[in-house]
Amino acid sequence: MSLVVIGTVAFDAIETPFGKTDRIVGGAATYATLAASYFYKNAKIVAVVGDDFPKEDIEDLKKRGIDVEGLQIKNGEKSFFWSGRYHNDMNSRDTLVTELNVLADFDPIIPESYQDCEYLMLGNLTPNIQKTVIERLRNRPKLIVLDTMNFWMDIALNDLLDTIKLVDVLTINDSEARQLSGEYSLVKAANKILQMGPKYLIIKKGEHGALLFHEDKVFSAPALPLADVFDPTGAGDTFAGGFIGYLAQVDTINFNNMKNAIIFGSALASFCVEKFGTEKIKNLSQEEIAARVQQFVSLSSFNIQ
Amino acid sequence: MSLVVIGTVAFDAIETPFGKTDRIVGGAATYATLAASYFYKNAKIVAVVGDDFPKEDIEDLKKRGIDVEGLQIKNGEKSFFWSGRYHNDMNSRDTLVTELNVLADFDPIIPESYQDCEYLMLGNLTPNIQKTVIERLRNRPKLIVLDTMNFWMDIALNDLLDTIKLVDVLTINDSEARQLSGEYSLVKAANKILQMGPKYLIIKKGEHGALLFHEDKVFSAPALPLADVFDPTGAGDTFAGGFIGYLAQVDTINFNNMKNAIIFGSALASFCVEKFGTEKIKNLSQEEIAARVQQFVSLSSFNIQ
Repeated sequence: MSLVVIGTVAFDAIETPFGKTDRIVGGAATYATLAASYFYKNAKIVAVVGDDFPKEDIEDLKKRGIDVEGLQIKNGEKSFFWSGRYHNDMNSRDTLVTELNVLADFDPIIPESYQDCEYLMLGNLTPNIQKTVIERLRNRPKLIVLDTMNFWMDIALNDLLDTIKLVDVLTINDSEARQLSGEYSLVKAANKILQMGPKYLIIKKGEHGALLFHEDKVFSAPALPLADVFDPTGAGDTFAGGFIGYLAQVDTINFNNMKNAIIFGSALASFCVEKFGTEKIKNLSQEEIAARVQQFVSLSSFNIQ
Repeated sequence: MSLVVIGTVAFDAIETPFGKTDRIVGGAATYATLAASYFYKNAKIVAVVGDDFPKEDIEDLKKRGIDVEGLQIKNGEKSFFWSGRYHNDMNSRDTLVTELNVLADFDPIIPESYQDCEYLMLGNLTPNIQKTVIERLRNRPKLIVLDTMNFWMDIALNDLLDTIKLVDVLTINDSEARQLSGEYSLVKAANKILQMGPKYLIIKKGEHGALLFHEDKVFSAPALPLADVFDPTGAGDTFAGGFIGYLAQVDTINFNNMKNAIIFGSALASFCVEKFGTEKIKNLSQEEIAARVQQFVSLSSFNIQ
């Protein structure tokens, strides 16, 4: 079996109230595979970069056990580039530059060795490309997780709805859940979205944690209250990668494991925002992660007989 | 020992997207004592009304075991009246009318029988009046809880800071915590506010639950995801009343009991918003409350070894 992650591998330039970066390595698939690698060693990546992408960063992924056979390198082309500026509240941001470059005609290649995929993470990307990946896998994975955003609801809603039909878990934030369902109440939104195909819905609420909906069950995961949020870029991708990495490790899909997976994903995401880009989540120890998870336990536990 | 609640007993007229009411009975002390009465039978109320206030409603409080000796009835004067309209998101509202009436020169009377007060709930009111009540109690209560709002931060900040110095627990919402501290991060805000006097700070986040800060400890309480929020009026007062009522019942102040008190307070508040005004929280059974608390347990529990 294997865990396959599709998404962007890209450059970001980020401005926050705490500082700014030049072009640094980012992208949904980068964050998600890095996060997953703490729980499941041999994640396989499907993505595309230009020949401007640093060889060392690809080597670094390999050293972590990440399989890059599905990472296409397009000669003479440039990698996807995104630049954004976060506002003081760190919850909202302006996109300054989006250069699609290699992403404009991305045709995902699924290497033969990826056909044993049992856990598929469809990182935020054009819904049609996400769907193509599902179609190109000969066997339906045991679990398909899809991450998306309001941008695709605005410009490709029908494609998105077609893709959502095919997945097990959808992860979106609260305003996207409201947009997708047309309901303000997240309970009503979840009920509608669970009719669209996914069996599980995760609504990410940033500093307010996350909600997991499944049938008539709900789980509310806390977020770790942080003194400083340095850079939120990639936190959602890190969450998704930690989430599916944990599930691939335990390899049993049920509501209790989903709850734990959300806690592990949230713990990884809480590290992600502490430094710019991938810096923090590239350099974690298992002890640090275990200690952070214990913070989530003590944060939310109470004892009522 | 006794539990004393000071606050408004008043009329409200409420508009929500679901409907509107004529003048109905409301006020912080009404909600808080009703909520507290499910855990601690003999709460004592300190408040003022005009002679327009319905005798039946005062009788109703008495029937529930609530002591109204400290409820002044001013002949020839009118009760405090507030009218507001909630927006579609139910998190924001416009005040349409505020008639102070009897509240304009409210001088709280502490009957001799209230001098055994060990649990004091200072419901949202002029900070100076809250402080007067503390001063008029000969013995310092075991626990003083203060609820306030941005309005007093705007117009009476110094009085508020003087009063906050004297209390054990402060309950405010997230934007108020930011306003009071000048910090965006709730962790930094809490650190600053805990330097202002209170040993415990509860930050209420509405549909996102609540945070409890004490020394270097944090507890994150979930909110019950609700399909319909019918009328949020009084939810914060109900929370505070349930919180202090539970603590008066168990009569031991520590972090674990505070956490449980927040869950019980949240459970009561989740009922409050299901109907207009006090209708729902006037008519609860202990079984309903216990079942609702169990929903909070299953909502937030997970099991990571």
